Amino acid sequence: MFMGKVIGSVWSTQKETGMENLKLLLVQPFDANDRAINNVVVAADRIGAGVGERVIVAQGSPARILFDQKVTPVDAVVVGIVDSYEMIVETS
Amino acid sequence: MFMGKVIGSVWSTQKETGMENLKLLLVQPFDANDRAINNVVVAADRIGAGVGERVIVAQGSPARILFDQKVTPVDAVVVGIVDSYEMIVETS
Amino acid sequence: MFMGKVIGSVWSTQKETGMENLKLLLVQPFDANDRAINNVVVAADRIGAGVGERVIVAQGSPARILFDQKVTPVDAVVVGIVDSYEMIVETS
Amino acid sequence: MFMGKVIGSVWSTQKETGMENLKLLLVQPFDANDRAINNVVVAADRIGAGVGERVIVAQGSPARILFDQKVTPVDAVVVGIVDSYEMIVETS
Amino acid sequence: MFMGKVIGSVWSTQKETGMENLKLLLVQPFDANDRAINNVVVAADRIGAGVGERVIVAQGSPARILFDQKVTPVDAVVVGIVDSYEMIVETS
Repeated sequence: MFMGKVIGSVWSTQKETGMENLKLLLVQPFDANDRAINNVVVAADRIGAGVGERVIVAQGSPARILFDQKVTPVDAVVVGIVDSYEMIVETS
Repeated sequence: MFMGKVIGSVWSTQKETGMENLKLLLVQPFDANDRAINNVVVAADRIGAGVGERVIVAQGSPARILFDQKVTPVDAVVVGIVDSYEMIVETS
Repeated sequence: MFMGKVIGSVWSTQKETGMENLKLLLVQPFDANDRAINNVVVAADRIGAGVGERVIVAQGSPARILFDQKVTPVDAVVVGIVDSYEMIVETS
Repeated sequence: MFMGKVIGSVWSTQKETGMENLKLLLVQPFDANDRAINNVVVAADRIGAGVGERVIVAQGSPARILFDQKVTPVDAVVVGIVDSYEMIVETS
Repeated sequence: MFMGKVIGSVWSTQKETGMENLKLLLVQPFDANDRAINNVVVAADRIGAGVGERVIVAQGSPARILFDQKVTPVDAVVVGIVDSYEMIVETS
């Protein structure tokens, strides 16, 4: 999983089987120094995350298990909204 | 999933089991500042995406579930054509 | 798997199915020269790793197999606390 | 999937269960500007790709499905030899 | 899969279910110009690879299939020791 910040939303009408009624958020991963790194991830959200919030995102087939009985091609899901975190960053 | 832009198509005659009759698109991922990043992804498309359109692409085994009854070695699928998106980009 | 250093913890109250009672650590991957590289990974820990310790983290569906009977969308788990390691680094 | 160029072959005698009789190619991924990017991928090839040819490579568990009845730890397979492709590259 | 060089070993006493009796190697991936790239990978080895040897490593759920009857959270395995390889590197 990675920790990121919700920076937006994306909407799509023309879509694949199983993508109906999914709220899709844009999540920006950050490194230990709070710099944006890597690509923005599109993650399904079922727990009510909003823009500006820090979230934890799971990816791959572990994320898909939440939709296990359905044919849902989702490879990233918001699995937690961050209350707080502690991080020790070494300066070099 | 990631959001990218369809930048082309690729054709192949000599191919593996399960790759028949698949439309394969070249999708370029972009970062929050709309700069092309990472490798171009080859994604199967069943929803009619065209060159220049922004799309959402799912990867890995969650993408493959759309072909679940078949032996199809597809690890990336266009799961949505983007109507619109909202993204807050911080300038630093 | 990768070797990283535990640099912190993250807490979340509002979360997905299967994320209850999980201790989530922030793990920073390092390269052969002990420089922090890539994104910080959020990994579930069931073996008592603490901040400052070096750990081995497994990712993807192999990590999730530890929760196999449950719907737990966890894609990274601390699978070992490092006692010692030997690494030959070539200088160029 | 990604598009790459076959740049070589690799041979191994001492190997794991399920790796027997596999032709293994070295495939270099390229970005939209045809610059080599990322690591060279070792991919199994069953369709007769040769050095210098452009190929499409599938990865992860979708690639492994081609060996579904066997214990074959293969995570990358050449799924198509490229006949032609069209790509629009924006100059900035 | 990727080709890398074994650069060391790692030992762990306190570990997860299924990690018992596994030899864990540190494998450094290299690019086409033999420069170390990306993170060092921790891979399980059952075929007797040693420090300094070039090996092929499989990752993700295809790697785990070698332990299929067991709950083993291993996401990377040495699947071959390289006898020889041929690689055409273009100079630009």
